[in-house]
Order: sequence, then C-alpha cells, then structure tokens
Amino acid sequence: MEEVEVAPPRAHEVRIRILCTSLCHTDVTFWRMKDLPARYPSILGHEAAGVVESVGDGVVEFAVGNTVVPVFQGQCGDCADCLSDRSNICSGVPPRPGFMPRDGTTRFSLAATGEPIHSFISVSSFTEYTVVDVSRVVRIEQAVPPEMTCLLSCGVSTGVGAAWKVAAVEPGSTVAVFGLGTVGLAHKGAGRGAKRIIGVDLSPEKREIGKRMGITDFINPEDTGGKTVSEVIMEMTGGGADYCFECIGSTSVMAEAFKSSRTGWGKTIVLGVSGGAIAPISIPSHDLLRGRSVVGSLFGGLKPKTDIPILAQKYLDKELELEEFVTHEMGFDEINRAFELLTQGKCLRCIIWMDGAKENGVKPKENRLTD
Amino acid sequence: MEEVEVAPPRAHEVRIRILCTSLCHTDVTFWRMKDLPARYPSILGHEAAGVVESVGDGVVEFAVGNTVVPVFQGQCGDCADCLSDRSNICSGVPPRPGFMPRDGTTRFSLAATGEPIHSFISVSSFTEYTVVDVSRVVRIEQAVPPEMTCLLSCGVSTGVGAAWKVAAVEPGSTVAVFGLGTVGLAHKGAGRGAKRIIGVDLSPEKREIGKRMGITDFINPEDTGGKTVSEVIMEMTGGGADYCFECIGSTSVMAEAFKSSRTGWGKTIVLGVSGGAIAPISIPSHDLLRGRSVVGSLFGGLKPKTDIPILAQKYLDKELELEEFVTHEMGFDEINRAFELLTQGKCLRCIIWMDGAKENGVKPKENRLTD
Repeated sequence: MEEVEVAPPRAHEVRIRILCTSLCHTDVTFWRMKDLPARYPSILGHEAAGVVESVGDGVVEFAVGNTVVPVFQGQCGDCADCLSDRSNICSGVPPRPGFMPRDGTTRFSLAATGEPIHSFISVSSFTEYTVVDVSRVVRIEQAVPPEMTCLLSCGVSTGVGAAWKVAAVEPGSTVAVFGLGTVGLAHKGAGRGAKRIIGVDLSPEKREIGKRMGITDFINPEDTGGKTVSEVIMEMTGGGADYCFECIGSTSVMAEAFKSSRTGWGKTIVLGVSGGAIAPISIPSHDLLRGRSVVGSLFGGLKPKTDIPILAQKYLDKELELEEFVTHEMGFDEINRAFELLTQGKCLRCIIWMDGAKENGVKPKENRLTD
Repeated sequence: MEEVEVAPPRAHEVRIRILCTSLCHTDVTFWRMKDLPARYPSILGHEAAGVVESVGDGVVEFAVGNTVVPVFQGQCGDCADCLSDRSNICSGVPPRPGFMPRDGTTRFSLAATGEPIHSFISVSSFTEYTVVDVSRVVRIEQAVPPEMTCLLSCGVSTGVGAAWKVAAVEPGSTVAVFGLGTVGLAHKGAGRGAKRIIGVDLSPEKREIGKRMGITDFINPEDTGGKTVSEVIMEMTGGGADYCFECIGSTSVMAEAFKSSRTGWGKTIVLGVSGGAIAPISIPSHDLLRGRSVVGSLFGGLKPKTDIPILAQKYLDKELELEEFVTHEMGFDEINRAFELLTQGKCLRCIIWMDGAKENGVKPKENRLTD
C-alpha cells in the first residue's frame, strides 16, 4: 500500500472515486509480465464501479456524482470502428500502454517522492481515485448495485459478449469452454440455449461450480487417461464442438481448442490474453481449410457504452445472473489475498471494497465458491 | 502417356467420358508431394467437363449422355453438413485419399500389367474416362460450353465462392489477394463491388492481366524496397485490408496475409492447399484478439450441386466472365507443357482437350495471357 497523488482530470477525462473493484486474470498476467506492454511502477486493476468526482475540460457526457464503470476498451463514438457494427476496437482514441490514451502522460505519482506511476490499460482501479478518459467511462443509469456493475466492466461482459456477439451461438449448439473462470462461466449468460456446454479446467472445484452454472460436461485435462483434451472432445461430440472458447490466454490451449472444433463450421473464439507479447498460435492449415475458423475478441466484441447498459438492464430483468460470480468480498487492505485466491483458482470474483464504501454498511462475505 | 483400364462404375458411381480438363495448382502440389495424402501411381486432374458414359447400380440422378462436371468436393445431400448452410464439407461420403470414397477401392489399372492406379481427390480427370461417385458429380443443364463448365469445377468457383459466401465482401471494401492465379483473379467474379483490390504476385506478367481483370493495385514482393508485403499493405490502406485472400497454399504467405488484415474486423480467408500435410500457420494471438479472424475454405464454401448451376447461369446471364481465364488450349498429348506453363506462372487456365472433342472442331488457342 502506497500513498499516491492522483492529479485532476485533464480535457476529456474524469476523476472517479472507486467504490469497489475486482481482480481479473489479466491483472495477474501483467503483474507477472517482465517486458512491454507491461510498464512499472503501475497501478493495476481494471474492473471497477465508481462515482465521478470531477470532470476535465470539454466533458459534457458526465457530471459529478454520476455512477459509472471504467472500462479498458474505448468507444469514442466517431471513428470507423465505433461507427461499424463489425468492430469494437475503437481506433479514434487508441490505447497507449502505461499512459493516458489521449496525451500519453499519467495522472499518478508517488506522494513521497513524486515519481510518476504508470496507468494500466487506461483504467488503474486498485486505488481510491483514478482518472479515466471519457472514451473509457460508461454511465450506469440503472439502479444496479456497484458490485454488480463492477462485474460488467470486464470478465462477465467478455464471456457473455463472446457467446452473444462474436460466436452468435445458435440454440442447440455444442460448446466447449477452456478455462472455467468468470469469462468461461459467463457464456451461459448469453442465453443462447446451447444444448451442451463442455467445461475444461484443471481445478476440481470448478466441476461443481460449473455444474451449478450450466456446464453439462466437465473435463480435467489431468484426468483423461493419456488422451489430449481435443481427442476427448472429439469422442464426446462425435466430431468436435460447434464453438470453442479459449478463456485462459495460453497459446497451447488455443491450439487445442482449435483442434476440438468441428470440421465444416467449427469456430474457435480466443478471449484469453497471453503473457507473451507476440505469442503465436499454431494451427494446421489443412484443418483450417476444412471449414474451421478462428476469431479473436477483446471484451467479447462488445462496445462498452452501447452494450454495458444493455447487460445492466438484463440483470435487472433477471435475464442475466451476476450474483453467482461474486465468490468473495473483502476490504482493499486484503487485496493480496485476492491475488492468492485467483492464482490458485479458488475464486471467481473477489469484490474489493474501498474503505469509504465498506463503512457505509458493506458486509464482506467469505468463500462462496464451494458453498 | 499410359494405356489404362477404367473399370465400370459400381453402385452410386458414374463413368464419365472427359471432354476437356484443366490444370489447377493443387495438381502440381500433389505431383510434387512425396508423402501422404499423395498416393502413387495416380491419375491426377480434378477440373473437367464430360458426358456420362454409364451409370452404376442405384444411380437415379444421372443418365447416359448427361453433361456433367466432376468435383473433388462432395455433396451427398443428407448429412448434417449438407443440410446446414454453414458447411460445404460433406460428412456423408467423406473422401478417402487415393481411393473411391464409398468402398475404398480404385477403378483404374495399368492395361499392360494390371497394377492398380490410385484415384486422385475422388476425380482423376487426366484420362479419357474416369469413374466418380455421384456425390461428386454435378449435372449441367445449361447450354454452357464444356471448357467453361470445366472452369467451374474448381479454381474459378473457389475464388468466386470465397468472396461471395465465405467472406461476404461488402461493397466498398478493400481486399488483398495473395497469388494472382485463377482462384485469386476470380474474386471480382463475386461482383461484390470492392472499391480496392490489391493483388500480390511474384510474376510481373500478372500485373497486366490483373489490371484487365479488376485488380486496382499490384505488389510484387520482390520489389518493395525491403519492406514486407504486410507493411506495404498497411501503408497503402492506412491500417490494413478488410479481407485478405490467400490463394497460394504457403503457410508463410498465410501469416503475411493475416498481418495485412485490419484490426477490428479484418478477415483472412485461406484457400490455398499447402504441400505439407500438417503445415501450421503461426498467428500472433495479440493481433488476433484485436478483432481479426482467420477462416479456411475448400471450394470457396460452395456446395457443388447447389452452387455450380447458379454460377453457370450467372455466366449465361453475363454476370460472371469466364473466357478471360482461358489463356491456353491444347491437346491431351501436350499436357506436360501445361504443367510447365502453370509452374512458371505463365498461364491462368490451359484447357486440355481430349482427342475426340478436339476432332469435333475445337481450335486450340495459343497464349492469351499477355495478349
């Protein structure tokens, strides 16, 4: 824990008081990363909910007091990508790893020494206050509790969006999900009615929680009698899954997901962020030729300002269940424990409450993963 | 030239008298292949037009005298793939490399010794007579000359289909085509109104013929001042092409095509068949994540029995130009020269006429590639 100065927002920026934040595996990936695009010192964290504390010049979309979620993915609204329904990779205000996207500086510095601290994927939420570009802030009008909107700012939205927008899973499909973390388990949230969802995870605890959350079959790669996971899936499905989601960020798992997809129309959707900056996936061209495809997606193909409010409304309408993803709640001072739980595969989402929010009556809950 | 016995058709097979055949690069790829799936001795050739000479038991779809094209890709009409509009990889009568798909034997033998000769991708058209499974025979009702229907049995259809069905190129798009052979040049046949078509080929002659056939920009990879082709395309297009078609079968070109595709929605369509049986493509996962995709396709995603007649009708309606693909015509005895022309990049399609057809008034044409 360090005392940090958070400078006021500049033009097209807002300063946000964080109410709660949660840990996503991408925080861990970058935490472990030695090289670019990781830049240190840095304030990690990119899933959060908060309240606008102040606004910079030219900000008309937000006012002090608005409840918002910051998102790593931008939506300027004006570029070719934002204007197209085929892309969610805003090219109008592209990210600058380690810095604010618009002017390439940072708003953080160490209180003691004044040393600048890098921003993390345009968000940096493991702090009581952060400054975020307006292209990366979504206003939440709905009466959704902050710990639920927090979930929508990365992991759950990525999983739901991937099934809903990127794969457009048809009812009756067979789906294989590699990695039963929050992203992987969120697929059923798309409500597309897959008849079979095969979950693949090394953690035996995920078998039970997966079952509760709609996984119909479970494969532990360490328990396949010497077969590869793709061989097992080929046998189980009689030829491969219609859709394979890679939610880990391992290039070898991406290749295995591809091999598990069906000839003719099998689609592999890569959602996991790998640690290596140019980590390549290797896919056999002959298998590709037989009608398979691979598509990558950040944030599940969702445009944050357009789609997060839709998901928030689905939550209120009870079409999207969010509570089950919150397996732990704790105070900000316990954040290192949250890292431990996530790296050990023992939680889905830990909601980390900032002090002020906690004092306002929040009661941290203990482990609900295996309840 | 060898004297060959062609056994009568068995159940669900037809014996076809070949009128004309043409050379496709896949013939060359397999001709050079030392290992499986190539099996020798073999009769190569898979683009052809012919007439049904006799039919086997249970054949109701064809009668003696029907004009047909044999196609390497099957369409049984009954399997999950044939019944889905997402797949053209018939799983009902899958191929058996080197043999007839249904019973795994061959209809060819050396007349002198009786030694069996393998079938080639279910067609084998470099022979006066061949036997083909009904799942791989398309009846042509239209009054289209045989040398034009011959073109529809592989290369032209693959290129047109890829743009039409697999990529579904939108009007106004930017397209990059790697390899300006028949498949590559056929893209404009899809009539999707791409505003820019960038052709990439090592052969300077292809610059001119490409221009005549709708290529708006040309890149010779040997003439880029040390830049990679993808760097040149990134500069030319301000960020990458919307659609990149790989029509060569080189895994390094596939990777380069991927790198030339636009962030956000860039799609790479792999059509070329590589020589190595498991030749892998290597694509950086981080680039994939930013909204790019790779899809492979055989026969341009077309279902032969459904779509070849549609293309034949488009030819008659002057919506699809075919004549320009025929750069050479010759007799069957000159087939080795056709191999030379194709491997040197000096032709698009050589129509090779069988003796009987030639005697019926066909006038072979000389080089029209650079006319």
